Amino acid sequence: MLSDSINESSKQLTKDGKLRHLVSLENLDKNILMRLLFEAQEYTQFKKLPDRIINHNQEHTIANLFFEPSTRTRASFEIAANRLGFNVINFDIENSSGKKGETILDTVMTLKSMGVDTLVIRHKEAGIHAQLVQDIGDECIIINAGEGHISHPTQGLLDLLTIQQEKEAFEDLTVTIVGDIAHSRVARSAAQGLTTMGVKELRLVSPKEFMPSKKLTSISKHFTNLDEGLKNADVVMALRIQHERMEDTNNINLDNYIKNYRITHKAMRIAKPDAIIMHPGPMNRNIEIESSLADGEQSVILRQVANGVAVRMALLNQLTKNHEAQ
Amino acid sequence: MLSDSINESSKQLTKDGKLRHLVSLENLDKNILMRLLFEAQEYTQFKKLPDRIINHNQEHTIANLFFEPSTRTRASFEIAANRLGFNVINFDIENSSGKKGETILDTVMTLKSMGVDTLVIRHKEAGIHAQLVQDIGDECIIINAGEGHISHPTQGLLDLLTIQQEKEAFEDLTVTIVGDIAHSRVARSAAQGLTTMGVKELRLVSPKEFMPSKKLTSISKHFTNLDEGLKNADVVMALRIQHERMEDTNNINLDNYIKNYRITHKAMRIAKPDAIIMHPGPMNRNIEIESSLADGEQSVILRQVANGVAVRMALLNQLTKNHEAQ
Amino acid sequence: MLSDSINESSKQLTKDGKLRHLVSLENLDKNILMRLLFEAQEYTQFKKLPDRIINHNQEHTIANLFFEPSTRTRASFEIAANRLGFNVINFDIENSSGKKGETILDTVMTLKSMGVDTLVIRHKEAGIHAQLVQDIGDECIIINAGEGHISHPTQGLLDLLTIQQEKEAFEDLTVTIVGDIAHSRVARSAAQGLTTMGVKELRLVSPKEFMPSKKLTSISKHFTNLDEGLKNADVVMALRIQHERMEDTNNINLDNYIKNYRITHKAMRIAKPDAIIMHPGPMNRNIEIESSLADGEQSVILRQVANGVAVRMALLNQLTKNHEAQ
Repeated sequence: MLSDSINESSKQLTKDGKLRHLVSLENLDKNILMRLLFEAQEYTQFKKLPDRIINHNQEHTIANLFFEPSTRTRASFEIAANRLGFNVINFDIENSSGKKGETILDTVMTLKSMGVDTLVIRHKEAGIHAQLVQDIGDECIIINAGEGHISHPTQGLLDLLTIQQEKEAFEDLTVTIVGDIAHSRVARSAAQGLTTMGVKELRLVSPKEFMPSKKLTSISKHFTNLDEGLKNADVVMALRIQHERMEDTNNINLDNYIKNYRITHKAMRIAKPDAIIMHPGPMNRNIEIESSLADGEQSVILRQVANGVAVRMALLNQLTKNHEAQ
Repeated sequence: MLSDSINESSKQLTKDGKLRHLVSLENLDKNILMRLLFEAQEYTQFKKLPDRIINHNQEHTIANLFFEPSTRTRASFEIAANRLGFNVINFDIENSSGKKGETILDTVMTLKSMGVDTLVIRHKEAGIHAQLVQDIGDECIIINAGEGHISHPTQGLLDLLTIQQEKEAFEDLTVTIVGDIAHSRVARSAAQGLTTMGVKELRLVSPKEFMPSKKLTSISKHFTNLDEGLKNADVVMALRIQHERMEDTNNINLDNYIKNYRITHKAMRIAKPDAIIMHPGPMNRNIEIESSLADGEQSVILRQVANGVAVRMALLNQLTKNHEAQ
Repeated sequence: MLSDSINESSKQLTKDGKLRHLVSLENLDKNILMRLLFEAQEYTQFKKLPDRIINHNQEHTIANLFFEPSTRTRASFEIAANRLGFNVINFDIENSSGKKGETILDTVMTLKSMGVDTLVIRHKEAGIHAQLVQDIGDECIIINAGEGHISHPTQGLLDLLTIQQEKEAFEDLTVTIVGDIAHSRVARSAAQGLTTMGVKELRLVSPKEFMPSKKLTSISKHFTNLDEGLKNADVVMALRIQHERMEDTNNINLDNYIKNYRITHKAMRIAKPDAIIMHPGPMNRNIEIESSLADGEQSVILRQVANGVAVRMALLNQLTKNHEAQ
């Protein structure tokens, strides 16, 4: 499985090791992550990128292909692309060829043939982005904007950028992620990025029903007790709880989850006093996170949102440059 | 209640009395209305604003957040923003985080954090725009694009502009609005604007079932007889009839409404010979208005549509300037 | 009927015979087709049109009004318009005034009054585009992007361009279209264009249940036997099969269709060795066309998609120039 993963990961690179697509943060080189974070950090300083900086050969067209609904990720990519002067085309897949039985590869090939340069794709099917890279990765840029439970790499990047802004060095950090780890693409991508950046400890906290069947990364440790997971943590990330999934599960219910796993002011007393609190959004206030905590001093939740645009600008810019250099 | 309204209204102004948001026309100063109408009138002369005129510090991004469906208002804002060189992002809220239980404040905060400068919001909940101004009005511009039965201020502005183009002085005018006054945000905003502009008479005509529980403005007079309402009117505005609402009401039915309240050539004989006919659209032809009348010489219905773009350009431009001057 | 058609067709021309709207390829002059194909061919050479070439008086706004769902046609128009520097506004009609009972003419008049210059309309109702040209064709440009079973003229144009790129002269060509001819707007527009361009033979192949009640054009020959239709063909076009329609028909079922009419490697042996294979998309792989054939050397299916953008750029540019010259 590991060698498979390496192979998967290498497909997103050019022959000389530059980032060509973004499928997954798994096994992605630390230097690549750091270069993205560096450029993204620059973009956080400017509301809009001065036109001079970007100087691509031609106008670039991005298609947002969201097979699952999204406000924030789609908007974040759209704003990032607008700031780089790219054209953006949005697809509401419910109302389109997806219904007509066309394969996703044919949809993507069609858009590529129309001159779309970059495809930002959210899809519930695991492996679909890697498959598309294999099938048409020579001709256009594929970006994973959410892949079932598997991966959400741009969310992982914005999490890294936010932590880097707030804390000194990844090597000294204990990071705790709390929620439905088993079904969370956010947790997986964050865990992969944090592992590459070399955090000291990576703790994943969930009821045993939400525990993944295997370890997320080589360093991840799983806890069912919130206090144990939060003890001396530098960074605490609450995941969104999917109500509907909760109801399908016999052994767990929402009240029990809230009682034992909600991130509250009280629970945070066991973490470090300067710990930051993260959430990928959209939030269920007072379910996975105490509402006033989300708005409090430790919260960096809106900073995450702002960083999402910066990270996507850096990603789009680097992928476009690497694509044109091919 | 009146003092509440004044407080509500003052929230949309800067400390030195400039327009900072648009929540409601109620109690909005006549000078502010006139400045908007003056600038809007200029824009009606030009299909596209010359780029030189607008010189904002940076590219401006607008989000259209429509929690209720709309073609015309959303398109009108989008075209107005395009002409000012702003970026526009549209949200179909049915397919987005709205479904996922996120509060509207969190959605708006998220968009603001991504760098959205102006939020154009349609929502059925009364008071939501004022609430958003209070919560995040320091950081971005809030524009009411429709608020339940309560308010639709940009519609009111385009109605004022259209009347001003066609008639000499507001002080000499008798304006008659016909339809479901009780549930009409169009009637409320028009009534507020017309009252501020000082029309001579403001008549509201409806079956008693559609009569509002209290007077719309200090000068409004309510009629249940169409002829009495139309007598010597200078301006006649027919409201859109909501079929579905009609069926829910025991004491009134569509046939009776048509018989007694449809604006027809015959009914218009009692108004002034040069009276103009208005309708906010979309029209139910031959229900609330005789079809040939809508297309006739007295009709200014398409002029209203064109003025809608001009008024929104003026509004977006002034709010952006006042925002940047803060 | 023929004289009616000529009248219909003439409405899309200016008095001096230039193209003013695009309603149908029927009876459209060969010179007009050739001028569009010539300009479109230029655009295929450039990913993006250099800004200098286009020099319209003002920024042009296009509205995509799709009353039936579409990914590819809508995206193709949007990309073409973006490359010409036009503004594009998209409408999802399910969520808009269409639901509120407004007539399509009122919707279009409204958009025109807002300053929309060109309306790209897909609608299931036959004759609606011609009607709109008659009603408001002096004021804005109407483009047919799909009209029930009747017409899909920009698809016809991209089919012509693709054939012209691949083959020497239309006069020498045998073109075979296979599928549900009776209900295909793609077949009708292609047949009309090919007839005007003077192909040697135009063959339409379908089960007798899918045979149209009258000849598509003066030169079209209808076959129920695939081999007879394919014999020595230079161009083979497979139409998309609508599963749902299939199930409604007693005398035909999908298995029989596949057995007798699917375009396969084997079936193609009877066509010319250098025959090209076309499909309007979206494809049902292994239903109307053998999957590997669609991806094989003879296939020009993705070329068709690319040509769709070029053809729509040429069309938008010429219609805009002819409109401004009025």
